[in-house]
Amino acid sequence: MDGITPLRFSDDTLHLLDQRLLPLEERWLSLATLEETALAIEEMVVRGAPAIGCSAAYGYFLGVLALTSWPGDEASFRVLMAPAAARLRATRPTAVNLFWAIDRMEEVPWSADRGQCLAALRERADTITSEDYDACVSMGDLGADRLTRDLPPGPIAVLTHCNAGALATAGYGTALGVIRSLHRQGRLLMAYSDDTRPRQQGARLTVWELHRDGIPVTLVPDTAAGHLLKTGRIAAVVVGADRIAANGDAANKIGTYMVALAAKAAGVPFYVAAPLSTFDWELPSGDLIPIEERDGDEVRRVGEVPVTVPGIPVFNPGFDVTPAELIAAIITERGVVDAPDTARMAAFRGM
Amino acid sequence: MDGITPLRFSDDTLHLLDQRLLPLEERWLSLATLEETALAIEEMVVRGAPAIGCSAAYGYFLGVLALTSWPGDEASFRVLMAPAAARLRATRPTAVNLFWAIDRMEEVPWSADRGQCLAALRERADTITSEDYDACVSMGDLGADRLTRDLPPGPIAVLTHCNAGALATAGYGTALGVIRSLHRQGRLLMAYSDDTRPRQQGARLTVWELHRDGIPVTLVPDTAAGHLLKTGRIAAVVVGADRIAANGDAANKIGTYMVALAAKAAGVPFYVAAPLSTFDWELPSGDLIPIEERDGDEVRRVGEVPVTVPGIPVFNPGFDVTPAELIAAIITERGVVDAPDTARMAAFRGM
Repeated sequence: MDGITPLRFSDDTLHLLDQRLLPLEERWLSLATLEETALAIEEMVVRGAPAIGCSAAYGYFLGVLALTSWPGDEASFRVLMAPAAARLRATRPTAVNLFWAIDRMEEVPWSADRGQCLAALRERADTITSEDYDACVSMGDLGADRLTRDLPPGPIAVLTHCNAGALATAGYGTALGVIRSLHRQGRLLMAYSDDTRPRQQGARLTVWELHRDGIPVTLVPDTAAGHLLKTGRIAAVVVGADRIAANGDAANKIGTYMVALAAKAAGVPFYVAAPLSTFDWELPSGDLIPIEERDGDEVRRVGEVPVTVPGIPVFNPGFDVTPAELIAAIITERGVVDAPDTARMAAFRGM
Repeated sequence: MDGITPLRFSDDTLHLLDQRLLPLEERWLSLATLEETALAIEEMVVRGAPAIGCSAAYGYFLGVLALTSWPGDEASFRVLMAPAAARLRATRPTAVNLFWAIDRMEEVPWSADRGQCLAALRERADTITSEDYDACVSMGDLGADRLTRDLPPGPIAVLTHCNAGALATAGYGTALGVIRSLHRQGRLLMAYSDDTRPRQQGARLTVWELHRDGIPVTLVPDTAAGHLLKTGRIAAVVVGADRIAANGDAANKIGTYMVALAAKAAGVPFYVAAPLSTFDWELPSGDLIPIEERDGDEVRRVGEVPVTVPGIPVFNPGFDVTPAELIAAIITERGVVDAPDTARMAAFRGM
């Protein structure tokens, strides 16, 4: 795994790049317990659905590591670990990879041999992480090929929202993976990044990681995305997803839906790049995806600076849902779903 | 003129509420010259198309007041004042009221009697200001009646973008005038205000002035407007305008266009409230409205706090254009243009 990564695991410690401090400071936190990991996910030290999944997997491993007496049978092991898994699952309600990753950790067979069980769990967490990285590279290359096929030749400008980048995954990124692959192929004119209020993951994270990798990037306020698209400056929009329903509706960072509407109005194709672990086949429609509401102080302040009347009521949903009909294609590590709807999603699943 | 106002003129001095400091501090600046007024407009001490027009009218008056020797004939008076008027016109390129107000000041007849000429100019600036206030109250009442007619009975939630309020006018406001009139009539459930990055006029100004007037207000990030509309929380959107073309296309603060798209997608009517001084009958289409590009540091920082990689390229247009087909009606002080297009706009003009 090359390049920028938001997490490393060594010496029974999860090391997380504290993304709340970027781009002004690069500080790594060292987490030794499940509870510390859960808090770090809640407080968005680490964010981005795939990176949350990888972190939660290591958090689960740390939870097992902390068991002081080794349970005598599998049933008591499961009883002991159930609240720990529930604690991790409760950290962020929207990202489905979180649940998927914990499910995969729970599927690791229990063993009476503590060392053997821990080794298997550690290996599973490492696998979840390395598979995520490999999936991002595949997705990036597939996405770049797809954009090249869809669009006229020559370098193109691409708009993205939030950070679906190396920092949101084990590395390379999903939407930014597509942008990285386009850049490697000499096909990228400019990446435009929305600011992404209230937490400014675009301004803070996307700009930082693309700039650091030498990829040309221009920052725009969220409010300017419509004008940018309407005035013909953008050839394609690529975003990530936190959860994709069985009909192709995609939940992603708040504001994504408005970008999709503006892309549609401008006749610009809108792509979602997300690993299969993001797909929630149980949900027939995006309307059923739970939307996390976050603290109003995220909007009342920027960092520590107040920007409005103190204590004013705030509505602060963390995500919105982009209907499938606004999505040109969903790019995964295993292939592309064109013009997604329930039938095409099901056909893709069966492939 | 009751209530909040962003400007007062007394003792040959223009007093401007420094809107850059709101809501954390209420400080009034005292300006004694045309150049000070021009700088205050450029630096957005005062903003909002109608308030800029009123301020520029007083700025022109201050320019005439400063003439040390009284010109012996009208021609030399006009020659003397031409660069002063040009200085004011150059402050903000998008707001058409600015040009309209200076034109009206230039139409005041010159007089060999300095005192008489100054009195006439002062009276004209006062008239521009009081007419703007009266227009806002008319517009507010007309708009509230119109929304009441269009929507089911019972209190309604209204979304607005930026600050088209008392602070943007001589008082009462355009879009916020409609909200004030709805509130007076007991028809307002909640005003939702977009944050309005990059300068956060919604968070800083709209929230402040509605809260101060006891009108219920909830702040939302710009990125959440689409979700708010899509989930049925909003009955109507009302915004102001900086310039309206002859086909009904309306330029307003950056981000307005995306709100209009989201309103259309949700089947929520989108209203523009603006005085006739905002109409630019010379422009056949909104595509011809010049869009001011502002300094990138407005996006790179919030106040003095950096939020991205220093020096990163930024695209920062100050306005965007909402096509007439997304506008349910334009509300003016003289009446309402329904479903505006070139023919209906021309018919309204001829009334």
